[in-house]
Order: sequence, then C-alpha cells, then structure tokens
Amino acid sequence: MIKALLSALLVLVAVSSAFGKYIPKSGKRIPQTLSRGWGDQLVWAQTYEEGLYWSRSRNKPLVIIFHLADCPHSAALKKVITEDNDIQKRLDEDFIILNLMYETTDKHLSPDGQYVPRIMFVDPSMTVRADINGRYRNRLYAYEPADLTLLKTNMDAAKKLLKSEL
Amino acid sequence: MIKALLSALLVLVAVSSAFGKYIPKSGKRIPQTLSRGWGDQLVWAQTYEEGLYWSRSRNKPLVIIFHLADCPHSAALKKVITEDNDIQKRLDEDFIILNLMYETTDKHLSPDGQYVPRIMFVDPSMTVRADINGRYRNRLYAYEPADLTLLKTNMDAAKKLLKSEL
Repeated sequence: MIKALLSALLVLVAVSSAFGKYIPKSGKRIPQTLSRGWGDQLVWAQTYEEGLYWSRSRNKPLVIIFHLADCPHSAALKKVITEDNDIQKRLDEDFIILNLMYETTDKHLSPDGQYVPRIMFVDPSMTVRADINGRYRNRLYAYEPADLTLLKTNMDAAKKLLKSEL
Repeated sequence: MIKALLSALLVLVAVSSAFGKYIPKSGKRIPQTLSRGWGDQLVWAQTYEEGLYWSRSRNKPLVIIFHLADCPHSAALKKVITEDNDIQKRLDEDFIILNLMYETTDKHLSPDGQYVPRIMFVDPSMTVRADINGRYRNRLYAYEPADLTLLKTNMDAAKKLLKSEL
C-alpha cells in the first residue's frame, strides 16, 4: 500500500513538474552545461571578457581550452583532464577557467593559428602567455593525452605571475 | 527483502558514481547551465562570437539578454520569460539566443549605456537593431515583466530581416 502511494506520489511530482513548461517539438533536451564535459564540478567563466575580469579581480591566471564537439583529439584530451583529480583540483583552486568552441576577436589567443585542442594561459595582467607551450613545434599550444605532466609543469609556470599585485 | 536489496543497490550506485571523481573542498556543486535559468530547454550560444556565427549561418536574428545574478529586475523578467511558453517557443524556433552577465567589447550593444536587464536584437547581417526598443526613454532596451506583449511585437519586428538572403 505504501509502495503504491509512493509510486502515485512520484508520478504526481513528475507530471506537475512537467506541466505547463515549454517542451521543444523535437522532445525534451538535457540542459547545456558551461563545463561542456571538461569538469562539471568546476566554476567556468562563460566568455573571454568574463574570464579576464575574474582573472584580474582575483589575481589568478586564466586557462582557456579551445575545443570542438566533434574533434576526437579534443575528446581524448577532455577524458584525461576530467579523470585527473590533481588537474581538476588545480584548475578549481589556482586558475580562472574557460572553455571555448568559437574563437574570440583577440588575435593574441592564436599566435600560431586557430586549431583545437589548444590551451592558452593568460596572466592576470591580461598578457597572453605565448611563452608557455606544449611539445609540438608546428602547433605550439596543442596537447595530447600523454602530455599531462607537461601541462602540469606549464600550469606551475603560469602561476608565476608576470607582475605581482602591490 | 526486495526493498532492502534496492536500497543497497542505490547506495552502491551512489558510491560508485562518486568514487574517484573530483569533489571541491567546499562540497559538491550543481553544474552551471548555459541557460542560467532563462529557459533550460532552449539551445543557448555561449559567446557573442558564437551567436553571431549561428545568426549568420542560419539566417536567424540574434537576441541577447544582458542580466545579473543579483539583480531583482533581471530575476523578475527571467521569471515571466521562462513561464511564457509562447516566448520560449519563439526564442527556440525563430532566434539565436544568448544571455550574458558580462559586457562584450562591441559598443554597438550598449547604445544608451550598460545596464541590466537589457535586450538587444542583432540582424543576421550583423547589424545591431538599435531601432527596436522598449518603452522607457531613459533606458531604451530595458523591459519589465509587464512589457511581454511589447517584447513579442519587437521579436516580430526583428524577424523582418534587414537584408534577405539571395
């Protein structure tokens, strides 16, 4: 009896929460997340402007991950970055983070071209750290899953700010 | 007995899904959504660049809602916009949509200043429709909950594109 009541209650809750709300013709969608799968527990900036503002006001370097939904290299890098708790913790505590699927108007963010995946660091002084790069000469800011240790070294380098706050 | 088994299974699922994943010191967070509460069922552009790209490639006008998390006027407008199925449907089907909490570098998006809530329309030709405004002379692009009918009229105006595709 209790189980039947509980079931009825569940149905009621489900119906009432759906009642009257807009549902697309194509069916209910899963709400998009700002993380886009790069770390649901992290607090992501939405836009470059927002990231720069947070970076300046909190005096933390900004990390920008350029990626694409249908790019297997992006997907492979995403997998190792989300599964590595050390990187997730560092991103969460030491950096302002932003992931982008579209380029910005700031050409400094693509010193050697627009490609994905690409990771750029920006100092709180709003200087793009073009000096911090991965191990590929033809795509200086590309990282592969095997490059996590180098990525961590580069995160440490980015944490040495160009200009300390007074 | 079945109930006990089910409970044990539930605990197991909860434990295993949390196992090994990064959890912030401050506790688990609810993932941020791109909608920021303005319509979870809609497909939002993340950035202005992305919105412009979609607007041009799909030949649909772009709507940009500027808002702030701690602004009661934004919250009031958000409530009526999310609860109005007609507006949600129009936004979903006829427009490219973007909500922003930070200003962009494009000054055309703030013809009479940067304030929230503010709704700007952009034509697929990438022209900001400064001619489409609300009913307040001192804040031309502000809307209040009572202005939904005017907002719908303005959405219709924005759908009349400045330059048709050949």
